Amino acid sequence: MNAPIFPSPAFFESTARAVPVELIQALQDRFGAQFSNAMAVRLQHGRDESAFDVPPPAAVVFAQSTQDVSDTLRLASQYATPVIPFGVGSSLEGHLLAVQGGISVDVSRMNAVLSINAEDLTVTVQPGVTRKQLNEAVKSAGLFFPIDPGADASIGGMSATRASGTNAVRYGTMRENVLALQLVTASGEIIRTGTRAKKSSAGYDLTRLMVGSEGTLGVMTEITVKLYPLPEAVMAATCSFSSLADAVNTTIEIIQLGVPIARCELLDANTIRMVNQHSKLTLREGAMLLMEFHGSPSSVQEQVQTVQTLAQDHGGAAFEWANTPEERTRLWTARHNAYFAGVQSRPGCRAITTDTCVPISKLAQALLDSVTEAEEAGLPYFMVGHVGDGNFHMGYLIDPLVPQERVVAERLNTQLVDRALRLGGTCTGEHGVGLHKMDFLVSETGAGAVDMMRTIKRALDPQNILNPGKIFTL
Amino acid sequence: MNAPIFPSPAFFESTARAVPVELIQALQDRFGAQFSNAMAVRLQHGRDESAFDVPPPAAVVFAQSTQDVSDTLRLASQYATPVIPFGVGSSLEGHLLAVQGGISVDVSRMNAVLSINAEDLTVTVQPGVTRKQLNEAVKSAGLFFPIDPGADASIGGMSATRASGTNAVRYGTMRENVLALQLVTASGEIIRTGTRAKKSSAGYDLTRLMVGSEGTLGVMTEITVKLYPLPEAVMAATCSFSSLADAVNTTIEIIQLGVPIARCELLDANTIRMVNQHSKLTLREGAMLLMEFHGSPSSVQEQVQTVQTLAQDHGGAAFEWANTPEERTRLWTARHNAYFAGVQSRPGCRAITTDTCVPISKLAQALLDSVTEAEEAGLPYFMVGHVGDGNFHMGYLIDPLVPQERVVAERLNTQLVDRALRLGGTCTGEHGVGLHKMDFLVSETGAGAVDMMRTIKRALDPQNILNPGKIFTL
Repeated sequence: MNAPIFPSPAFFESTARAVPVELIQALQDRFGAQFSNAMAVRLQHGRDESAFDVPPPAAVVFAQSTQDVSDTLRLASQYATPVIPFGVGSSLEGHLLAVQGGISVDVSRMNAVLSINAEDLTVTVQPGVTRKQLNEAVKSAGLFFPIDPGADASIGGMSATRASGTNAVRYGTMRENVLALQLVTASGEIIRTGTRAKKSSAGYDLTRLMVGSEGTLGVMTEITVKLYPLPEAVMAATCSFSSLADAVNTTIEIIQLGVPIARCELLDANTIRMVNQHSKLTLREGAMLLMEFHGSPSSVQEQVQTVQTLAQDHGGAAFEWANTPEERTRLWTARHNAYFAGVQSRPGCRAITTDTCVPISKLAQALLDSVTEAEEAGLPYFMVGHVGDGNFHMGYLIDPLVPQERVVAERLNTQLVDRALRLGGTCTGEHGVGLHKMDFLVSETGAGAVDMMRTIKRALDPQNILNPGKIFTL
Repeated sequence: MNAPIFPSPAFFESTARAVPVELIQALQDRFGAQFSNAMAVRLQHGRDESAFDVPPPAAVVFAQSTQDVSDTLRLASQYATPVIPFGVGSSLEGHLLAVQGGISVDVSRMNAVLSINAEDLTVTVQPGVTRKQLNEAVKSAGLFFPIDPGADASIGGMSATRASGTNAVRYGTMRENVLALQLVTASGEIIRTGTRAKKSSAGYDLTRLMVGSEGTLGVMTEITVKLYPLPEAVMAATCSFSSLADAVNTTIEIIQLGVPIARCELLDANTIRMVNQHSKLTLREGAMLLMEFHGSPSSVQEQVQTVQTLAQDHGGAAFEWANTPEERTRLWTARHNAYFAGVQSRPGCRAITTDTCVPISKLAQALLDSVTEAEEAGLPYFMVGHVGDGNFHMGYLIDPLVPQERVVAERLNTQLVDRALRLGGTCTGEHGVGLHKMDFLVSETGAGAVDMMRTIKRALDPQNILNPGKIFTL
């Protein structure tokens, strides 16, 4: 596979569909102060955490209701104009960039927690609710929502990218945790998928078709997700290893033994150094597992004992405990900020981030060979992993003014993906395809499956106005 | 909602698409002894466990490979002729009935376990492998596959209906347990979806779109599912209650407390009587919970203690233990045979089976009101429930020669579904829509969502040849 070459802003400028003035006028009339085409607002909605430069959308609608989203789509569809959903802007693969021009529909003001059903462990929220906001809202009921993709992302964005994060090893991803949706189709129709029942065989699984569709099949306006009782006991610990291989092999054994560990994160020595600097911590600078255990006190004890024994067998140091909720929060905040710690370790750089996920038995090969290649290439990088899932991220820190660095980073990325696919894995465990992994997607699943995706897209969005140019080109 | 009226065999006879003799000839030429249009073979492939009478398919192809399935579809698509996949024939909603005529493609000879990846807890099988066969194949690796819909169904059929069963309360359904597929499209193309990675954000979730699509979007030819380590400790027990309400309320509290119970099944006194007679058991004839606990010895002890306390609070009798593997097998076999026990309790009858699933907090209302209505109607019935999931089945035992009994059963069914939908539930937890729940599906999800399903179906199967007339009419 050849490394992908990303087009210049000028290319997008020349290929974007024009947004008719009639549509701008119609949106202005309909939305008044909820509409803006001021350059500052457009620019704010024209970038995410990816390393891509694309001209901003022509205008922004700040939706406050499902009807607002519906009206936006209805008007946009009359003018065959792209509509790009925007949550908090934390996507990593250019999901919200207006690569074909169009209108950004910002749902961040749709941030109401609509109904908490504590006795059924479900909650229904608007798409602009963030994961931290959601957890605040359900805490007093003794519940929590486990999915945490680092950033304080919106539940809408997390659903659209099929996000996961540190807790997925125990609680699953958005795929397992979204029960039902209200969504607006390309023509502006409002439909519902799923119910609050735990399981169902009622027709096609539209809920899971929408989860991970990156805004290309509909705009989610209500999302019902599962909640979990706050665990009776929580223990978090770090464990240092003298080599990355020892840390990885410990992880593999933890998973293969079926330990229901709640978090199992790996950082290499290099990244620990960046995290220490960024978060003012003094973690030991070696390959390190950050772990958390949930359950009854006795079940947590059982898990800890098993994992300590496995770690010792691989030369792991004694566990260092984060005993209080405050210490735990500090530890996990530092872990979640690893991306920013990495980027800030090289002023002015941008990160090309990888996201492969492989079957657990292949993790050592997938991860260690990728690290070796990065070391040999000499490009600065960070490495963090949701290793309990077989998922890890390399962030190649490139100087955007040195084109050769991007070339090297993309070559490393391509080698890493090729290897993961050979090992039975996926090119993206949780970030999505977006702009950057279209070729990888074809390599992974084959042209036939991608053609099936295209067929579905064309059928549900015949004018290609829902976040066009993502996942695949039409 | 009006009770559905099921058409007569003569109606289907008059509306079925004719199967061209050229296609019969082409299939005969291609498949030789793997092809049959003998009436006995056709009849065997023209009935399932539903209560519907429909003329049989025109012929049967016994596929032995993915290529066989592909060639069947390629030829059938040339003649716009329906193709209906057949596993073991245990579907309950008429899924494999040739309501528009056509060819049955029997995949029961595609019954190879292709690869067991014990270290990743995955296995890839052909669609004709049955759940018992799969469990035999992985037992020596210390693993098991938990989904068990009563019948020894094929993994293909279970995937197609999004099946679950007694273990779903802990291990999820086919939705959560299918990782990847190979499938044949309407035109005969062979494609792959998913990988062996535990999670992925790589484009549309075609795997989960196919799971539960009842053979209407493609024919599965390879299925990769998750496996689980055989639990270190297993304990099974029964507990009798003086009322159905007490048993249901105990269940609700077990689930709301987050006890990771592996099985939590309810049978009413009436059904216990039928099961005792059928399976030569002496279970106490009252409302009864059948439970199983999996985990480490200490975790199982913890679960049992919690559940015993909850049961006692509701007047439950002391647990009666099934201590040996043989006793457990006997207990669960009896549970799995409850359907047959019910049907055999009234010689010559057929069962109209319901399958609603509601949020756990609504289970008491959904279940108890349905039982009261059945009692009042005076029709014989059985009642079994995967109550830990909020899912239960009423089987109304009708005399097929007394049309009025069918009318009463359908009225009860409709009242029961209406109630479940009002309570936020689904019309089908695990059996699928098939022929019988099309109106219920529209009531549940709305015309907009069903139209979206139709749009997907038309796009992927423009000639409507893949198991047509199921889930919705086009």
